[in-house]
Amino acid sequence: MSESYTVAELATAVGGTVRGDGAIRLVGMAEIDQAEPDQLTWAGGGKYTKLIPTSKAGAILVPRDADPTPMPAILCAHVDSALVVVMKMFAPPQVTPAMGVHSTAVVDATARLGTDVAIGPLVVIGPGVVIGDHTHLHSGVHVGSECKIGSHCVLWDHVVIRERCVLGDRVTLDAHVVIGSDGYGYTFADGAHQRLIHGGNVEIHDDVDIGAGCTIDRAKFRSTSIGRGTKLDNLVHVGHNVQIGAHCLIMAGACIAGSTILEEGVIIGGQASVRDHVTLGRGVQVVGMSTVWSNLAAGMVVSGIPARDHREHLGELAALRRGPGLLARVKELTQRVEQLEASADHLDSR
Amino acid sequence: MSESYTVAELATAVGGTVRGDGAIRLVGMAEIDQAEPDQLTWAGGGKYTKLIPTSKAGAILVPRDADPTPMPAILCAHVDSALVVVMKMFAPPQVTPAMGVHSTAVVDATARLGTDVAIGPLVVIGPGVVIGDHTHLHSGVHVGSECKIGSHCVLWDHVVIRERCVLGDRVTLDAHVVIGSDGYGYTFADGAHQRLIHGGNVEIHDDVDIGAGCTIDRAKFRSTSIGRGTKLDNLVHVGHNVQIGAHCLIMAGACIAGSTILEEGVIIGGQASVRDHVTLGRGVQVVGMSTVWSNLAAGMVVSGIPARDHREHLGELAALRRGPGLLARVKELTQRVEQLEASADHLDSR
Amino acid sequence: MSESYTVAELATAVGGTVRGDGAIRLVGMAEIDQAEPDQLTWAGGGKYTKLIPTSKAGAILVPRDADPTPMPAILCAHVDSALVVVMKMFAPPQVTPAMGVHSTAVVDATARLGTDVAIGPLVVIGPGVVIGDHTHLHSGVHVGSECKIGSHCVLWDHVVIRERCVLGDRVTLDAHVVIGSDGYGYTFADGAHQRLIHGGNVEIHDDVDIGAGCTIDRAKFRSTSIGRGTKLDNLVHVGHNVQIGAHCLIMAGACIAGSTILEEGVIIGGQASVRDHVTLGRGVQVVGMSTVWSNLAAGMVVSGIPARDHREHLGELAALRRGPGLLARVKELTQRVEQLEASADHLDSR
Repeated sequence: MSESYTVAELATAVGGTVRGDGAIRLVGMAEIDQAEPDQLTWAGGGKYTKLIPTSKAGAILVPRDADPTPMPAILCAHVDSALVVVMKMFAPPQVTPAMGVHSTAVVDATARLGTDVAIGPLVVIGPGVVIGDHTHLHSGVHVGSECKIGSHCVLWDHVVIRERCVLGDRVTLDAHVVIGSDGYGYTFADGAHQRLIHGGNVEIHDDVDIGAGCTIDRAKFRSTSIGRGTKLDNLVHVGHNVQIGAHCLIMAGACIAGSTILEEGVIIGGQASVRDHVTLGRGVQVVGMSTVWSNLAAGMVVSGIPARDHREHLGELAALRRGPGLLARVKELTQRVEQLEASADHLDSR
Repeated sequence: MSESYTVAELATAVGGTVRGDGAIRLVGMAEIDQAEPDQLTWAGGGKYTKLIPTSKAGAILVPRDADPTPMPAILCAHVDSALVVVMKMFAPPQVTPAMGVHSTAVVDATARLGTDVAIGPLVVIGPGVVIGDHTHLHSGVHVGSECKIGSHCVLWDHVVIRERCVLGDRVTLDAHVVIGSDGYGYTFADGAHQRLIHGGNVEIHDDVDIGAGCTIDRAKFRSTSIGRGTKLDNLVHVGHNVQIGAHCLIMAGACIAGSTILEEGVIIGGQASVRDHVTLGRGVQVVGMSTVWSNLAAGMVVSGIPARDHREHLGELAALRRGPGLLARVKELTQRVEQLEASADHLDSR
Repeated sequence: MSESYTVAELATAVGGTVRGDGAIRLVGMAEIDQAEPDQLTWAGGGKYTKLIPTSKAGAILVPRDADPTPMPAILCAHVDSALVVVMKMFAPPQVTPAMGVHSTAVVDATARLGTDVAIGPLVVIGPGVVIGDHTHLHSGVHVGSECKIGSHCVLWDHVVIRERCVLGDRVTLDAHVVIGSDGYGYTFADGAHQRLIHGGNVEIHDDVDIGAGCTIDRAKFRSTSIGRGTKLDNLVHVGHNVQIGAHCLIMAGACIAGSTILEEGVIIGGQASVRDHVTLGRGVQVVGMSTVWSNLAAGMVVSGIPARDHREHLGELAALRRGPGLLARVKELTQRVEQLEASADHLDSR
């Protein structure tokens, strides 16, 4: 199913050079401790490099200055960049819907589709929608009225994009993503929570990937925004009005509450959350299962509930671990002080 | 696209009075620090009121007794209630499916549809279903057999309601909500987890809103129930047999485990969880990312894992922050006591 | 709607014996404190047994050696096993799509369907798919190309199974489950996060149940795997390459990060998470809302963020609760030591 390549062909593809037998043919890839003699592996450094001597891999991607290896090596300027190339080469071809519009799709007459689009079975496209060139909509995708979708996007099965939302180019939405759900905004009046109608939308910039089951709420007035190159894992919630900068990483199960700002390059760990109306500066990192309650300066690494400086929090955890012992120690110390006080009284009274 | 209104028209709509030029025409709304001269804003009090002097808004909603403002003001009995009205006026019209039943919908011959329903493309309605007047089902909604849905409901794309569930009037379910999934109930027998077939259903009362991607499990015998006017944010899980009272608020990512009872007006913060078989009294508030392990009396505000009184927990967090210092202090104190003991021995032996 | 049975009939069905009047006819089931005289209940031990004297149930399932009960009893070798049988008897019949392939389903000509399959409305089945005998696909299920689905499976509405994934026999996927979404794997190169194309798949073994809205990511090279008899609650995330053993239980909202291994019988509490690349030994239990950061030996019970031995953690929590008091105590003790030091100086100088 997937292709096979010689070591020499792979080296050419990644712009690297062969050390050893370039004629060996490889049929797949695996991690260094699991690769077989007909498979390629890689070692960019650290613990992977230590496993080279015992690996059974047929060939290995290593940095240019790597020590000799027992198997043929492909010397690369950047192992990570090479990995992107070879994983794509060995992967089975990406599945796409048939080109054109499937006979069961329901496309409004006013929608404008680019060239070379692929619209799968049972897709629904509303009035006024614009879809760019080379964009693929898998089965059951629903695009609400007046949405704009860029070129080279891939929307997997059952994605829902509600009315008036905007996607840039090369956006990938995995199955069951919801874009443009109503913001969670109520005001209590006349004995009940009254919904505030959210007239805004969601704007997803170029090269964003959003994982299966994520929900991105529309803004009150303008746009909830996800910046260029940002990648969301599965089941992430993004609240109304949130502004996420470029090149952020947000891991599975995280929640970003309303009107919060994540500047460029922020990393949010799995199941972490950020409260509403705060700003996380450039490059902030939030450890998984933490909760941010306040603004964070650029570059901070935080953990805890509420989140604070990560090293400080680790110190607190260490202290907490010694908490039960400390209680006993203070009790014992109190007894010794009492004894000293008694004997001081005794001395005084001499 | 959206409408424009004069200040005087807006004042009439909210039952307020104009102070200043009522003829100014506004084309939209924005928050006080972002509003432009052709936009309406609001300030109900607190930090918003402090921003009035520097706001560029064309007009502002304020309480009746508000100080003079640099821009025309609409004096309101309740700013929050007025906000509900004007946000609806300025929002683009709500998108609805075309009236009637779309030609691609699959509606069982035994289903009974009310007047003025709108059934979108690729909707599936099972046998014995009853749908009330003025209810809208967007594309791809699936309603299982014998379900009853009230009037004036809005079900967004790809909502799934499994068999025999019941929805009241004015219920809104956002995209990808699942109502009536199987309860998570197993018993270990014969070397494996055996599923307990859940014969109950889910009952959603009037005026409930449920956010995108929520899952509400069916009960073992009777009904999992969500009370009148309760609002769920996105990706909330509600387990089998749970009884949620009226007017509760449950934020994104929260989990309510099986058979638990939330009385009226309970607020559950984002990603918080409540274990199974406990009762949270009227008006209990659970801070985000907390976990409730026990019954809570009415009105309690709790946080922590497990959750306890919020103030108490904040005190513990403050103590924890001083934990590393405390360790050092006790160590130093121990040395001083040792010294005192040594000198006491010395004195004694004189 | 549901059936009625005599106590004697029920006893026969569960292989038990009647004590008391076997002719009483029952129409349903309920928990012991809620059952009515025409309903069956059960009491396997503990607090349920204490409620027997005050229960109004018409009959009760109890262990063989149970004390006399006020209502007729069915004596069972295993109450839990009997419960599985009677809950199924009293539940309304399970809803299934009509046998055969619905006229609106889109089934590729190269797909191979077993005997007695039921393919609901608007199902999409891709090229090369194989579906086993007696398997039911409810409305809107999408099965990607080259997938293999076993026999006696039930896939609820809108389930998405992406390309090349494999399901065993008797697998149940609740509504909106996603199997085979892209793994979250990127490498930073050329100023952006580059996606690593995941060429692997997901393999779900026999008798697995997966709750509504769960997302299971495909592996990089081989298979993300969920072992025989494992049961996932709703909204669970399973990352790429994860290996989950047989008979595990994973509660709602939990996240299992990439390449992690859960051995047989592991239990993960609600909203708990496990980081990537760790191994949890046989029978490990993780308390809800905890986070596992490291390998755990078989049989460990852990809690906390990060998770540690549960008893130890409870001790720490107890110490934490006394933290504020401890601060005060150390302060007071310091003053007493200062006083002792002052008087020791005084004594010395005498």
